Order: sequence, then structure tokens, then C-alpha cells
Amino acid sequence: MELQLPRGMRDFAPAEKLLRDEVTNKLKATFERYGFNPLETPIIERWEILAAKYGGGEEILKETYKFQDQGERDLGLRYDLTTPLARYVAMNPSVKKPFKRYQIGTVYRDGPLKKGRYREFYQCDVDTIGTTNMLADAECVSVALDFFEQVGLNIEVRVNNRKLLVDVAKMFLDAEDEQQALAFILSLDKLEKIGAEGVIKELKEKGFTQDLSEVLALFDVSGDNASILESLKKAIPDEHDSGWSQQLSEVFSYTGNDPRVRFLPSLARGLGYYTGTIFEVFMADGSFHGALAAGGRYDNLVGDFMNSKESFPGVGISFGLEPIIEVLKDKQGEENLKKSTVQVYLVPIQTTEACVKFANQLRAAGVHTDMDLIGRGPSANFKYANAYGIPYVIVVGPDEVEAGVVSLKNMESGDEEKVSFEQALEKLSSLNHQK
Amino acid sequence: MELQLPRGMRDFAPAEKLLRDEVTNKLKATFERYGFNPLETPIIERWEILAAKYGGGEEILKETYKFQDQGERDLGLRYDLTTPLARYVAMNPSVKKPFKRYQIGTVYRDGPLKKGRYREFYQCDVDTIGTTNMLADAECVSVALDFFEQVGLNIEVRVNNRKLLVDVAKMFLDAEDEQQALAFILSLDKLEKIGAEGVIKELKEKGFTQDLSEVLALFDVSGDNASILESLKKAIPDEHDSGWSQQLSEVFSYTGNDPRVRFLPSLARGLGYYTGTIFEVFMADGSFHGALAAGGRYDNLVGDFMNSKESFPGVGISFGLEPIIEVLKDKQGEENLKKSTVQVYLVPIQTTEACVKFANQLRAAGVHTDMDLIGRGPSANFKYANAYGIPYVIVVGPDEVEAGVVSLKNMESGDEEKVSFEQALEKLSSLNHQK
Repeated sequence: MELQLPRGMRDFAPAEKLLRDEVTNKLKATFERYGFNPLETPIIERWEILAAKYGGGEEILKETYKFQDQGERDLGLRYDLTTPLARYVAMNPSVKKPFKRYQIGTVYRDGPLKKGRYREFYQCDVDTIGTTNMLADAECVSVALDFFEQVGLNIEVRVNNRKLLVDVAKMFLDAEDEQQALAFILSLDKLEKIGAEGVIKELKEKGFTQDLSEVLALFDVSGDNASILESLKKAIPDEHDSGWSQQLSEVFSYTGNDPRVRFLPSLARGLGYYTGTIFEVFMADGSFHGALAAGGRYDNLVGDFMNSKESFPGVGISFGLEPIIEVLKDKQGEENLKKSTVQVYLVPIQTTEACVKFANQLRAAGVHTDMDLIGRGPSANFKYANAYGIPYVIVVGPDEVEAGVVSLKNMESGDEEKVSFEQALEKLSSLNHQK
Repeated sequence: MELQLPRGMRDFAPAEKLLRDEVTNKLKATFERYGFNPLETPIIERWEILAAKYGGGEEILKETYKFQDQGERDLGLRYDLTTPLARYVAMNPSVKKPFKRYQIGTVYRDGPLKKGRYREFYQCDVDTIGTTNMLADAECVSVALDFFEQVGLNIEVRVNNRKLLVDVAKMFLDAEDEQQALAFILSLDKLEKIGAEGVIKELKEKGFTQDLSEVLALFDVSGDNASILESLKKAIPDEHDSGWSQQLSEVFSYTGNDPRVRFLPSLARGLGYYTGTIFEVFMADGSFHGALAAGGRYDNLVGDFMNSKESFPGVGISFGLEPIIEVLKDKQGEENLKKSTVQVYLVPIQTTEACVKFANQLRAAGVHTDMDLIGRGPSANFKYANAYGIPYVIVVGPDEVEAGVVSLKNMESGDEEKVSFEQALEKLSSLNHQK
């Protein structure tokens, strides 16, 4: 038997898992501060749901793990958390609106592997279903600003509105043809990366014959968000404003003048289902190539899923745990990751039963307590505690049990002191209150 | 398209998910207090690993979801967390021992559905790999006692040792034949449920022809754990004690005289890989039919997986989230479940921008804050807050913004007061410190 993992799958050893848990706990706490509640849907969905026209699309479906249960029903592993959300809301139409939920879970894509790409990875999504109010869009931006501040990353939230892109495409290109408008928008999305010349070249290759310099000039903007919006409103006649200027100005009014929020009129996002506000979060200094979070407004997705004429507008943002962890590990240094949550390690010297009692008293006081289970000598035990970065070690010999004392060693300073059981308990339990 | 879940899969709406999170958070906190650190392995494993001789066994394998990736490699969804742990330790033989890890995650079984049986469910496991010391076994018992106290359930931890059963089978039945010994042990396991007569009847049906009343008498025990152990030691000659009396007496010495720990000599547990201590946790009053947690010692599993002569003894206990939630929901009443984590709900009356600012100040102070996103009237908003059990509602009109005050309503008492923004902030943020 070959001992190995399936391709694209990973084990997370404690040091990495502790960091991942810390980050997802901060995401959860942030989501809850903004009034989102947790939803959990299963990892297995019916194939029909995953393959629905309004789901993730053809490309994603090719990469979806497919199988049957014993009843020969077609099933698949979810490729995102948005399609299950749409299915959930469609199945539970009486759920109170607006429905603000978050979900943190693994998704699966059987795609090509490269650096940073895995076949099992986490998505951490917040969505609000049931309102067209731009307050909900602004909340997504605020959640991102708040969370990245919690983890100490300097980011920029790029904001745009798909209506602007669609309107511009129609105005300049007579592109009533939706496919052509989409082709234009997807090239324009690269403006930040490849510049105006690059975009024009790509559009020509796609068969656009129009003079593109004028339309590209529109996106050659600078200044603060309000002034960019003003200049676009001036350059684009009102009949080509199907709502973007009002929506963007509302979003910016709710996010205040936060300098981390940047209006980027060329931003498009790939997915076809976005209908309004879109956002992407990048490191402010460009030190990481990809987006750390992204999302947008999708006013038709849920209704389409239900085949319903009732409107179920939605907006949400998805945080990518994998890129966030990659950036945080680079910043902290892999070698500095916390390896254990243990706060004190007990070394019994022929005092096992007394030590077990003391360990359980420490645990009852909330102290993360481990003890030698294999009867190593003191020096091997100190080495073990050191390797795991455990801050305190207590050695308990028979004389000490008799005298009611222990010798408590601070592993960082090297200081060692004889204290009573009670003093040790008090000192160690105060560690948690300082946190 | 039919909007439905695959058979055996469930959605967890916020009220149920909040309870599930509360319980898994308490499990995690308990596991960490006992010095266990988190490990995460993927949900997809190679089929060869899942089908390994020392894995979950034939029966489980029949119920395992199987599929291929695009490279036509055989894969499956994990059916437990023990086989992945054995695979992990075998793949990482240099991991420091004892290796104390916990894992909380979903597992999958495509089996028959009945009440309380699902095809996706959570297991919450703690295991210690690398020591034969009974301290590790006793820690499993302590973790169970501690956790169930945290969630307020009165349980009993039934403890036994597989060596006792194997020794008795050999002594009374000349059952050198391992299959026969196992058949005997599996019937004996039902003693608690069907009584001595039931067990004898079942054994006769299995083809046992010996006089079984003498051996059954051995298990007709009462008294405290120490006296049961003493009477067994008296009744069973030393040459039929391959270690059980010593091991059991050590475990009981470490768990103290906790009345919730009960030595049950007929306890067997089904799985073939247990080699020593075994435990099962039941409601003390018998109010729930199944086990809430169970586990035991498996000294050969990991080594067998590695095809190694080196010994990798292990012991662990697995908490079943599904039965625990079922019991807690029955106890609390489904209608009393917390429906939202929101602590205050803001109702702007033509004061949206001021309200957004205030909401963000509350969030910065750690208060879970939601606000009206759809411009309902005050009474509809109070109804909404009531439906979700949100404890406070704040109404902010234009005059109030001018005067720097808000009207804060306690939804439980119905009291309403006009206070300054700052006072409201202070009062609401103190909610979290009281917790």
C-alpha cells in the first residue's frame, strides 16, 4: 500500500491548523459583529443542483467531483458556497428577509494543480439575500475592512459596479450582443495589470474593430472616489446610466472616506451572475498576486434557481482562507508559528497520581495542561516542552508533594521558583485573563 | 429541476448551527485543556487507504462513497477520523510522541437511513499515539467527564478492557479460534440490554454448545469498581490475566473515585481493532438509547498501517455530535434555541448614514450589531427583532441625531430609555463582559 494523499489534498499539522483556526475564528467573530448568522449546508449536493444553468457554470462543472450513491442517484461535491445558498433559500422561501448568513467550509475542484491551487480548499462567505439596498453592499466592504484590520494586513478594497461596464459597452460598441459585451468587459478587467495598450491589443485579437482609444480613455482616471465618479458622470450621458452612479455613490457614502476603499471603474470579476456592485480585496502594496477576498451583487441568481418571478436580490463577499494564510505565513515566518496551545507541562517524578489530580485542578481553572505520559527524565521533558514552545514546566517530586509545593519554571526566562500548589494554580490561571 | 437535498444530507439553519457551534467550541476548549492540539486531514482519501485491511472493515467499506478524479485515480470519502489519523502518523513517522491530537469533522456513510442516522455526520475525536501508559486512557475518560459537565448532561462512562473478554473467552470456551472468541464477545456485549438469558440464547443460536451459565455468572457483578475488579481477580486464575487487572486498576486510580465512571465487565464495543481499555458514554438515566461517545485502545492499528514492526500504540475517544445535539435539543426544547447572535438592532428613521456610523462604532466595541436594511416601519422592525430574540432595539430619528441621543429598548422588559450615543455604546458593550 502506498501511503499518500490524493493529489491536491493536504493534511494540516497542528502548527498550521492553529493558525487556520485563529483566522477562521476572527472571520466568524467579524461576521457576527455585522449581524450575520451561521448556516451549514452539506458537502454533497445533487448533481442537478450543481449543474443548474445559474450555478457555477460550465468550466467549474468540468472540475466537479461526480459520483453516485448506492441508489444510483447522481451526486457531486460542492464547488462553492453560493450555489448551495441559492438552493437553500429557494427550498426555504419563507425564511425571513433580509437573510444574512455566513458559511465557512471546504469546497472541491478537480482542476489543474499549481502553486496555491488545491482540490480541497476553504471559502468563507457572507451574503445578504432579500434587499437591493446598497447598505448591504457597503456592509460587505466594511466586513472586509474590519477583518483585515483584525489580522493586521494592509489591504485595498477595489469597488466597481457591473452596470457601468455594461452601459459603457453598449454605448461605445453597439454591443447589444451580450456575449460581445462580456468579451469586452473581461478584457477591460485586465487594465490594471496589462495597461490600455494591452487591453486594446487583446480586444483587437478578439475581433473588435472599433476605435478603442476613446473608450479606454474613459477608464484612465485618478483622484478620490467622488471625483472619479463625477468625471465618469460627466463623460457618460444620463441615458447610459442604468443606475451605477447612484449605487456607487450610495456605497461610498456608507463606507465613509476610508482611504482603503478604491473605486476602480475597470474592475469586472469573471462570474456572469453579478448584476451590480462588485469588489475585490488585494494587498495594498501588491505583495501578493491574487485577491484575498471578492464578491458582488447578484440580483437574479436565487430567483432563477427557483424559477420564480419573485425577486430574491443578493450580495455577498467570499474570503479565501488559502491566500490569507499564505500571506500571514509569509509575514510571520513559518518557523514562528505557534506549535501547541499547551500552557503548562507537568513532570511527575514518582508522583503520578498527585500530578494527575493537580493537572485536573489546573484544567478546571481553564489552564491548558499536559503532562509526561511516558516517564522520561527531566531533561528530555524540558527539551520536549521547548520544542513545542510550552511556556511553563512544573516538576513534582515526592518531597514536594509532601511539602505541598512545586517547582515552576518559566521556559522563556529560565527562572525557576518553588511555590505552593495554590500559588502555581493562581499564577497559571491568570495567563488566560491577561489574553 | 427538483429542489432537494441528497438523501441523508441536512441543512443546518442558524438556530441549529448556533447550538452545534456552541457544542463543538466546548469540545475544542475541553480537548485543548487536556493538551490535545488540532489536526486536519482531507475529506477525500485514496481508496486504497480506506480499504486497507486495518481500516474500518468490510461493512463500513460497503457504505463508503467511491469515485475517481479526472486522472482516474480511485478515491473515497472518509468514513471515520481514525483511519486518516493512522495514515497521517504512518506518513509522518518523525512526529514527536506521544502525539496528542484532536479532530472535529464530517464523515460519510452511504448506509440505510433511520431516525438519528445520516449520511454526513460529525465525529469529534481525541487520540494519543505513542504510549501504552494508562494515563492516556484515563485522560480520555476525564475529557468525557469534563465535557459533559460543561454541557450539563448527566452521563455515565462505562469502562472495560478487551483483554478481560479475550482471556475469559479462551478460558471457558477453549476458543483459541479468534472468530469464535469474537462471536462470544459480541453477544456478551448485549448483557446490559438483553440480560443473561438473552445472551445465552443468542450464543446457543450461534452454535456454542458449552455450559454458559458459569461464564455468565462471572459477569453478574455489583458494587464499586474496585470490588468488582477484586471479585473478577479472585474468580479468574492469574494465568488468564494477560494484563487487564493491572490496566483497569491503573485507569481507575487515575480517574479517582468518580461515581460517573462505571466498570462494566461485559462491555465489548464492536470494532475489531481494540486491544485494551474500551469506553462508552451513556446518559446516566438511560433517557437516550445510544452512546454519546465511545472509544478505546488500539495498540496495533497504526503499526499495521505502516507495515512496521515498530510499535505505535494508540488510545482515543470519539464524541458523536449528532446524538449529543439530539439530547440537548430535547432538553432545551427546539423552540428555545437561540436564533441569532445579534445583540442590538438599529432602526434608522431618515438617519441612515448616522446609523451606519453608530453601528460601526458598536461593532468596533465588540457588540453584535444589525440594522434595518429595507426601510420597514418601527413596528415591523420590532416584530423582526422579536422573532429573532434580539435583546435590544435602538430607534434613531433625525431629532435624536441632532441631540446626540438614541432611544434604547430592552426587548425583554419592554423598558425604553433615551440615552446618549456614548451611554448606549457603554451599556451594550458591557453585555459581552458579563458573559
